[in-house]
Amino acid sequence: MNRQSLVEQIRQKKSYLCIGLDTDIKKIPIHLLNEPDPVFSFNKAIIDATSDLCVSYKINTAFYESMGVKGWETLEKTVQYIPDELFTIADAKRGDIGNTAAQYAKTFFEVYGFDAITVNPYMGEDSVRPFLEYDDKWTIVLGLTSNPGAADFELLKLDHHYLYERVIQTSMKWGSPENLMYVIGATQSHLFSDIRKFCADHFFLVPGVGTQGGDLQQISAHALNKDIGVFVNVSRAVIYASDKENYAREGRSIACQLQQNMLTYF
Amino acid sequence: MNRQSLVEQIRQKKSYLCIGLDTDIKKIPIHLLNEPDPVFSFNKAIIDATSDLCVSYKINTAFYESMGVKGWETLEKTVQYIPDELFTIADAKRGDIGNTAAQYAKTFFEVYGFDAITVNPYMGEDSVRPFLEYDDKWTIVLGLTSNPGAADFELLKLDHHYLYERVIQTSMKWGSPENLMYVIGATQSHLFSDIRKFCADHFFLVPGVGTQGGDLQQISAHALNKDIGVFVNVSRAVIYASDKENYAREGRSIACQLQQNMLTYF
Repeated sequence: MNRQSLVEQIRQKKSYLCIGLDTDIKKIPIHLLNEPDPVFSFNKAIIDATSDLCVSYKINTAFYESMGVKGWETLEKTVQYIPDELFTIADAKRGDIGNTAAQYAKTFFEVYGFDAITVNPYMGEDSVRPFLEYDDKWTIVLGLTSNPGAADFELLKLDHHYLYERVIQTSMKWGSPENLMYVIGATQSHLFSDIRKFCADHFFLVPGVGTQGGDLQQISAHALNKDIGVFVNVSRAVIYASDKENYAREGRSIACQLQQNMLTYF
Repeated sequence: MNRQSLVEQIRQKKSYLCIGLDTDIKKIPIHLLNEPDPVFSFNKAIIDATSDLCVSYKINTAFYESMGVKGWETLEKTVQYIPDELFTIADAKRGDIGNTAAQYAKTFFEVYGFDAITVNPYMGEDSVRPFLEYDDKWTIVLGLTSNPGAADFELLKLDHHYLYERVIQTSMKWGSPENLMYVIGATQSHLFSDIRKFCADHFFLVPGVGTQGGDLQQISAHALNKDIGVFVNVSRAVIYASDKENYAREGRSIACQLQQNMLTYF
């Protein structure tokens, strides 16, 4: 998906909501466990109930990988089920040397057909470049994450910069706002304005709203750009809105509240 | 596998060779393409030909992931085929927030039964801790890697330290030499002595020998400790020693030369 189509969808739906399908088989309603593929049945109902309210789905691969080979079948069916106009993100956080990174790019862009993948920048340029070589595909580099461990390395000071700022500034040279985005954690919303000073045009994928404590108003006030330029990701607060048969309807209700709160920014 | 068993195996075989099964279906001998699972047939022959010469196999998950769901079946069969006494490493370079990292730990330690996994430290402590909670399993944190991109961030200066040194020194507090190892790239062998000054006891996984240009003598001279404390990983130079039917025998011949060169260090 190119940037123009993405921005058009965002403006049309008046939404920059991304729903995280971090589906844990231990947390889905028990009546689904009788289905042949409980996680796929769950995802399908969530997608049916929310695809008009969000612009993207983010699939956290770890939750599928932990189900073994069958988990990958579930992941594949889920990506295929998502309507084409929605932006699909493989939240896989891969990163390895060049020839290996090329295999990961092939995996997520060609084999499963995702629009985007999250990538860990620690190993530097040749670990990121192979993802950027695909037309109309997106590389979402980890900048500043929303977890407590962000303080260990991402927030280390280098001269006058934090490491995560250096990561963003350096990696901006490898791609463009047409193929490169950044993960910026929502629990650090006061830092969004600082980041926008040197990274005005790129999209940010902002996880951490809801269960992790991020605040939608704060993010919207500080992170949006002229093209909106943000995906706010919500996972657990939507998909686990209820542990009963009404889970999809309750999830829709939360997604609806979030989208309503986004309306004022259009 | 605990440290004692690992060190005993190394001393018994007089080898600290790890063979990387980074098997690319495009690079294996063409006669294997008639087999029902060509990559598994290839791996099986390599394992049969080399398991008395090495102490570990490292499976680079990217090469399996890029074959889709079937690739994971091949990966599973390969891990199960490796004799129990050999140390198995999932070279997966995973890293994510705590609840997601726990899913990755489950995937590689429980579902596939690996002894160890490589982990990317960028996201800090809570992204590494869940892997360390397993008894007799090992977390191999990326320290300094062997690729050109290592210069972008890993070799950045923080006060008087490089970032990778800070990563090692900080993460050493999270585990012990009984459950934590480091990836240290072989192309940077002059730095091994510096790292051993503050990280004397931990095992290092050293990729980059062979195709990537690392030198076995240099590594051995600078990186070994009282328990040997090193895995030297060789992938392409062994597994692609020949592209003909004699590939396993030729691979064994390279593995044998490497093990012979290791003899002098026992």
